[in-house]
Amino acid sequence: MGSTFGRLFRITTWGESHGPAIGVVIDGCPAGLEISEELIQHDLDRRRVGQSKVTSPRQEQDRVTILSGVFEGKTTGAPISLITYNADADSSKYEPLRDVFRPGHADYTYWAKYGHRDHRGGGRSSARETWGRVAAGAVARQLLRTVAGIEVYAFVRELAGIQMETFDREEIDRNLVRCPDPVAAEKMVAAILEAKEQQDSVGGIVEVRADNVPPGLGEPTMDKLDAVIGYAMLGIPAVKGVEIGEGFASTRMRGHEHNDEFYLENGRVRTVSNHAGGMLGGISNGEQIVVRLAVKPTSSVARPQRTVDIHGNERVISVEGRHDPSICPRVVPVAEAMLLLVLADFYLLNRAARI
Amino acid sequence: MGSTFGRLFRITTWGESHGPAIGVVIDGCPAGLEISEELIQHDLDRRRVGQSKVTSPRQEQDRVTILSGVFEGKTTGAPISLITYNADADSSKYEPLRDVFRPGHADYTYWAKYGHRDHRGGGRSSARETWGRVAAGAVARQLLRTVAGIEVYAFVRELAGIQMETFDREEIDRNLVRCPDPVAAEKMVAAILEAKEQQDSVGGIVEVRADNVPPGLGEPTMDKLDAVIGYAMLGIPAVKGVEIGEGFASTRMRGHEHNDEFYLENGRVRTVSNHAGGMLGGISNGEQIVVRLAVKPTSSVARPQRTVDIHGNERVISVEGRHDPSICPRVVPVAEAMLLLVLADFYLLNRAARI
Amino acid sequence: MGSTFGRLFRITTWGESHGPAIGVVIDGCPAGLEISEELIQHDLDRRRVGQSKVTSPRQEQDRVTILSGVFEGKTTGAPISLITYNADADSSKYEPLRDVFRPGHADYTYWAKYGHRDHRGGGRSSARETWGRVAAGAVARQLLRTVAGIEVYAFVRELAGIQMETFDREEIDRNLVRCPDPVAAEKMVAAILEAKEQQDSVGGIVEVRADNVPPGLGEPTMDKLDAVIGYAMLGIPAVKGVEIGEGFASTRMRGHEHNDEFYLENGRVRTVSNHAGGMLGGISNGEQIVVRLAVKPTSSVARPQRTVDIHGNERVISVEGRHDPSICPRVVPVAEAMLLLVLADFYLLNRAARI
Amino acid sequence: MGSTFGRLFRITTWGESHGPAIGVVIDGCPAGLEISEELIQHDLDRRRVGQSKVTSPRQEQDRVTILSGVFEGKTTGAPISLITYNADADSSKYEPLRDVFRPGHADYTYWAKYGHRDHRGGGRSSARETWGRVAAGAVARQLLRTVAGIEVYAFVRELAGIQMETFDREEIDRNLVRCPDPVAAEKMVAAILEAKEQQDSVGGIVEVRADNVPPGLGEPTMDKLDAVIGYAMLGIPAVKGVEIGEGFASTRMRGHEHNDEFYLENGRVRTVSNHAGGMLGGISNGEQIVVRLAVKPTSSVARPQRTVDIHGNERVISVEGRHDPSICPRVVPVAEAMLLLVLADFYLLNRAARI
Repeated sequence: MGSTFGRLFRITTWGESHGPAIGVVIDGCPAGLEISEELIQHDLDRRRVGQSKVTSPRQEQDRVTILSGVFEGKTTGAPISLITYNADADSSKYEPLRDVFRPGHADYTYWAKYGHRDHRGGGRSSARETWGRVAAGAVARQLLRTVAGIEVYAFVRELAGIQMETFDREEIDRNLVRCPDPVAAEKMVAAILEAKEQQDSVGGIVEVRADNVPPGLGEPTMDKLDAVIGYAMLGIPAVKGVEIGEGFASTRMRGHEHNDEFYLENGRVRTVSNHAGGMLGGISNGEQIVVRLAVKPTSSVARPQRTVDIHGNERVISVEGRHDPSICPRVVPVAEAMLLLVLADFYLLNRAARI
Repeated sequence: MGSTFGRLFRITTWGESHGPAIGVVIDGCPAGLEISEELIQHDLDRRRVGQSKVTSPRQEQDRVTILSGVFEGKTTGAPISLITYNADADSSKYEPLRDVFRPGHADYTYWAKYGHRDHRGGGRSSARETWGRVAAGAVARQLLRTVAGIEVYAFVRELAGIQMETFDREEIDRNLVRCPDPVAAEKMVAAILEAKEQQDSVGGIVEVRADNVPPGLGEPTMDKLDAVIGYAMLGIPAVKGVEIGEGFASTRMRGHEHNDEFYLENGRVRTVSNHAGGMLGGISNGEQIVVRLAVKPTSSVARPQRTVDIHGNERVISVEGRHDPSICPRVVPVAEAMLLLVLADFYLLNRAARI
Repeated sequence: MGSTFGRLFRITTWGESHGPAIGVVIDGCPAGLEISEELIQHDLDRRRVGQSKVTSPRQEQDRVTILSGVFEGKTTGAPISLITYNADADSSKYEPLRDVFRPGHADYTYWAKYGHRDHRGGGRSSARETWGRVAAGAVARQLLRTVAGIEVYAFVRELAGIQMETFDREEIDRNLVRCPDPVAAEKMVAAILEAKEQQDSVGGIVEVRADNVPPGLGEPTMDKLDAVIGYAMLGIPAVKGVEIGEGFASTRMRGHEHNDEFYLENGRVRTVSNHAGGMLGGISNGEQIVVRLAVKPTSSVARPQRTVDIHGNERVISVEGRHDPSICPRVVPVAEAMLLLVLADFYLLNRAARI
Repeated sequence: MGSTFGRLFRITTWGESHGPAIGVVIDGCPAGLEISEELIQHDLDRRRVGQSKVTSPRQEQDRVTILSGVFEGKTTGAPISLITYNADADSSKYEPLRDVFRPGHADYTYWAKYGHRDHRGGGRSSARETWGRVAAGAVARQLLRTVAGIEVYAFVRELAGIQMETFDREEIDRNLVRCPDPVAAEKMVAAILEAKEQQDSVGGIVEVRADNVPPGLGEPTMDKLDAVIGYAMLGIPAVKGVEIGEGFASTRMRGHEHNDEFYLENGRVRTVSNHAGGMLGGISNGEQIVVRLAVKPTSSVARPQRTVDIHGNERVISVEGRHDPSICPRVVPVAEAMLLLVLADFYLLNRAARI
């Protein structure tokens, strides 16, 4: 179990890397929303592999088909089933991995938990599962845009230790690493290619932001906005940390520095700074939501590594196959999707906050 | 809504800082577990305020009473209701705060969301709510200890920029800041007292660990162990970041460095290093679980700050009252409790993983 | 687990018959609702034992105390914790029942499931648990009345085979059995007293209705209004059947008879008849909601019965103690509460049905 | 929302009557279970339309394809996605129904709730949705059979007032109405054909039973076995009532008659009679589970009926199309599926009942 996310705007993903298809069911999308395959495909195309020299060469068109829940261009309130068929699923490369555990991967833990696993391409634990998250995120984006003008976007802030120094939102989708600083982007691409050449991989930091979020989203004390964002982001493959606003940097600030003072702007309550990253006490405060994710270096590296197999032998393994030397650029659309899903759910939940 | 945590081992907290009582209901604790008020009180005493010069002087005995679910010393499978009555709830100090928003606190967002709020001591948003989490965590601790020998502990790793340099687990509860390094602890106490004198506050980093966790806990793809830990930890008041294993440091490592190689130890699969912090693909791998939390400096500072009130006026406020100049030492038992709750839930869920 | 009801308007009950107290936590009641202990007590007083010669002589004041979630007379959106302390819990009578299973009761099944049980007064399985349902139902009633003018009421339709023949809503609370027909009520009282004298018990049929329910409540395909009503009603102790509208009688009707034809009344869609009991396809249609419950004869009878004990001996038992010779009159407020809880939850869920 | 059923063994159905496909995702099926398309198809074939002169002539092969969660013949613990493509979906007949509400159907309530609906063949409200329930039920059947030897079966007990008088389990699938009494079956077929000729429809009573259910299933106080059965059964299209054991007949019994006395059979606790239908206090007691459903006469009748349309006009309608003059025979496999799903979920939940 555990493949469902959300309470009211609720998604369930299914499918394995090398099975016939993968998909997602969205249950709880309100009726009357304009949705099309094109709209969803737009977000999916940003997630696709085979996009450039810095990502996996696996070719997947990832075309979405809407199987239910949309009638004559609008949602009906019924579950929305989205599917894509796996095309370029070359399983033969995985045959040698049938009984051996790749370090850094979920092979061992799935085997330990379930006793029986689909080893092909990581099976269920493959990042291919995020297709469904991004597809559902596109629907959430349309909902939030339509009903509240909320906009969510993400980008690579740091990669292989190279930090972004300027910010131009338009730049994000112009370069291969999705960094809003073209100079840093160039260095990042070089770092990825260098790692690739060395049969290695690199990590980085992805930032996600949301604009125009109204005050009031979040359901304390357990389902705080920050808590559910933490849940959403740490569920993305390769993410090992998440911080809100100043995050870890706040631990070295003084209280009077970190507190965001309030003022009025045309009668609206605003804060002078935004160290809190757009939320207080687990509820959005109307400022920009700012979240950062720590993305580990990809686990699939061709260098030989020590490992063991299911028969209780120690082995040495080189993970061949088609992998991303850095997953950061492809985490960008997934991180957006997860924040969109969180906000869509809280947006609907908030309708029940007052009589 | 949103006051429930967990699926099978499920808790619901209730109560306001200055109401007559606060409490928690645990639904789903298996029958047959030995539980007593003393056992729960032991954990609660570590959370209490009024413990030392570095914490709030508010005096609360925080005595737990078991109202249900335990019969002749053992759980019956029925909901366990735990309660404590608020004693030293001096609300008069809060009267001036009835209509004004303290910076860094949830006053504004609760007001924006609900339209009507209990302003006394932060009402529902008070850290006093964590009493219920710690009480329930003590029951989870007893469960995990009894059925699996799992042990969870936490400590302050860094405070006001002062880092722990040695580790002695026995030391943790010996000093006022719960740091396992007595030399660093002394400096941390000094830093807190200095901040207090300056009507200010400081933050820090808390680390939580779990030993003896068997492989298999976690329910991917959404309810991964890391994801639910993120949810649990970012729901603790003042926590602004969470990382697993190497966390943010992993972003500057290479893949071959970060991957934990496997080997066999008496037939058991182990990893040479533990950069992953005890989990792979969202499932525990049998190594130590390692989680770190970024704790912001306490928001209640006596220094004057700009703010606004509910009537639409800009104001200046000094937050008097009885506060912790650093909440880190008191986050320690809460962080333990949250990890215990996560593990107890996954432990029970894992019983359904195989036929 | 399993002590929680509802998704958005969500209650968790706790407590045993002879423990120190029983209670309920309501999580998800919208903020801004006027609530008082008096308002809740009004519904609780209708549920109380010790009311008359036809109910159990156990004396419980059942006074409710609001412990949280209400501030200056209005809900705050925080969990509402309600408690009552058990006063007249005479456990000594239950000592002989510590190791023996009363026929028709949950003694054996709780023992088989949990291995350890509170035998006193049925422990958790006691109908005393319904206190929390009725208390929470009173809050749901206030919500539905305030926001939508919805009114719910119930009554005894049949008892010991004696059927109601006239209907006067005002009559319901005037007689001891809560039957809207005073003539039938008199016969029912006589039947109960006769059964009591014979150390026996009788069953009957309770009907619950809701007026002014707007069209649109219910969440198909699984959480249909009828389905969730079935769930709610079959969870009431002693209820062994539930039907909607014509219910079992519909099985002998023809389709053209059973279908409720539509017409317009001042522009509003109405049905000529109401065989469907106010719902179509799992969603309310704006007509009166009509539900009937089959209530079995109370299981506690003083007549000797064959049974077994936990030591594997066959025994003969006479269930002494203070019991209701018919539980029907006391099912009335519980059935109301459950329908109120269902409707409150669906009312809030329905706010997310459209963009 | 509302298309998910179950807590641990959890299904989500999706799809409309005349959309491209319908399906179901099962999340939480334990790993290691032998599953095949043939096994699932076996149950689906019993649900299919176009089977005989007493059911709808719509032709659907209803072939199931397993898209995920099964690898080399066994479940992996990942979500199991099952799909079938709609073949014979003749939507043209529904064009005249685009803006008019069929009496007894969900047309009006879906329109009132969602404001936008797929009118073709009832869209989401079509009984075609039960395909996913039956497919998932087949997996639950395999689970329960494998781990506990539990067997579930259902049959038509009464139809158009004609009651079954003998019981031969082998007979059930031999006749067109699935009645275990061949003589009654013949009369039932005649009654259906007569109703069909008269452009009308008939209802009946379906009974579902489960053998070999161990004591302990059910999670009181809210998620009692009876309560969740009520939820499951009243969610089946056309079901208007449900009863357990003696059900409504118990209301006219005396307590000493209705109570099932306990005795020992080879050390196992048994009851002499089974008026309770296999459960006490919401938990299975080891006896046969017995549930009966009231099935209303099908709403689609060709006779002219009064109705209204979405433009606010009163109209007269004759529901042409391909319908079942009695849905009872096809409720049989759906009722089995729902009981299987309930039991599978409780079976897994019960693993967490004790330490």
